Amino acid sequence: MSENQDKDARHNARMARKKEVVDSHIAAAQIERGVLLVNTGNGKGKSSAGFGLVARALGHGQKVGVVQFIKGRSDTGEEAFYRRQPGVSWHVMGEGFTWETQDRARDVAAAHAAWEQARSFLRDPGTGLVVLDELNIALKYGYLEVESVVADLMARPVDQHVVVTGRAAPPELVAVADTVTDMTVVKHAFAAGIKAMAGMEW
Amino acid sequence: MSENQDKDARHNARMARKKEVVDSHIAAAQIERGVLLVNTGNGKGKSSAGFGLVARALGHGQKVGVVQFIKGRSDTGEEAFYRRQPGVSWHVMGEGFTWETQDRARDVAAAHAAWEQARSFLRDPGTGLVVLDELNIALKYGYLEVESVVADLMARPVDQHVVVTGRAAPPELVAVADTVTDMTVVKHAFAAGIKAMAGMEW
Repeated sequence: MSENQDKDARHNARMARKKEVVDSHIAAAQIERGVLLVNTGNGKGKSSAGFGLVARALGHGQKVGVVQFIKGRSDTGEEAFYRRQPGVSWHVMGEGFTWETQDRARDVAAAHAAWEQARSFLRDPGTGLVVLDELNIALKYGYLEVESVVADLMARPVDQHVVVTGRAAPPELVAVADTVTDMTVVKHAFAAGIKAMAGMEW
Repeated sequence: MSENQDKDARHNARMARKKEVVDSHIAAAQIERGVLLVNTGNGKGKSSAGFGLVARALGHGQKVGVVQFIKGRSDTGEEAFYRRQPGVSWHVMGEGFTWETQDRARDVAAAHAAWEQARSFLRDPGTGLVVLDELNIALKYGYLEVESVVADLMARPVDQHVVVTGRAAPPELVAVADTVTDMTVVKHAFAAGIKAMAGMEW
């Protein structure tokens, strides 16, 4: 047997064993229902992973509702693109980042209006995916009560997926979520002096 | 001053200080060029964050090339959706996960064909964003040489963004990347017995 054939044979045997393990895990996961996903942490990818799921859901014919809790700008690529897509209902309901507004009362009022919009999606069985972008920030600053937000999330239609994004997800939300990812910074272009680039950061 | 007014005043002062810090960081980041982003780690969100950037780039009128190195299936929501979009060139070039094929020689050949497709995007100044989905897996198994992959990535047009996804990004790739995120598992629905759901996992 040549060295390459030997390498291939060992690889193939290892992969056959791995397939058994993977298949048994797949067989064990049989519950079918909507997933509550939380993307948190300080790294890049929390919102963009949410916007990737919008494409995924639309490809399966699902309707999608998006509420942006903090962002006030309406010049992002994702908004320009998705507003053109049938099946997407997009709501920019923030007043800008908290250090831009410097006005807590206005931020609280904006967050409450945004939550009302979110609730209308969370009560609609026709909406397959709800993206609550930067909701964690509104919770972190106490603009919304985590208990009532969690109650509304848990009362949603059984097949509905929800994605919540933003740094510092509160423990009460992590506790009830199905999948939670911490986007951990290994390195970031911004720290190396690269500007926030169109198509990458907005 | 009422308790609420006092809380608001303290919040507003804290946010004014935060704005100074944020503004000085923004002023320091002035380099404009394409970003090499790597999404790695064991958690959910590596590929979906890449597919979110596709929407972002399209919203800015950029053309996008996608190459899937491992995935062989063509029934995903993201593919169905993005194949309908002008400006997207989508290539599923894997043969399925390595433990499904159990055929290293075929996997190596598929990876090389996929890299040729990737190179055609990496040489095209008209392509604003290139998504190399699961490339890290092809590198991890040695299907492609990391040195030649890195050389092709670094020789791309200066304004072109690239996203590389997959577990276990090799250190040589992390070293040359601008932004690297480790998607870290906090919890995952699959471990709790929930099936991979349409619109969420595929």
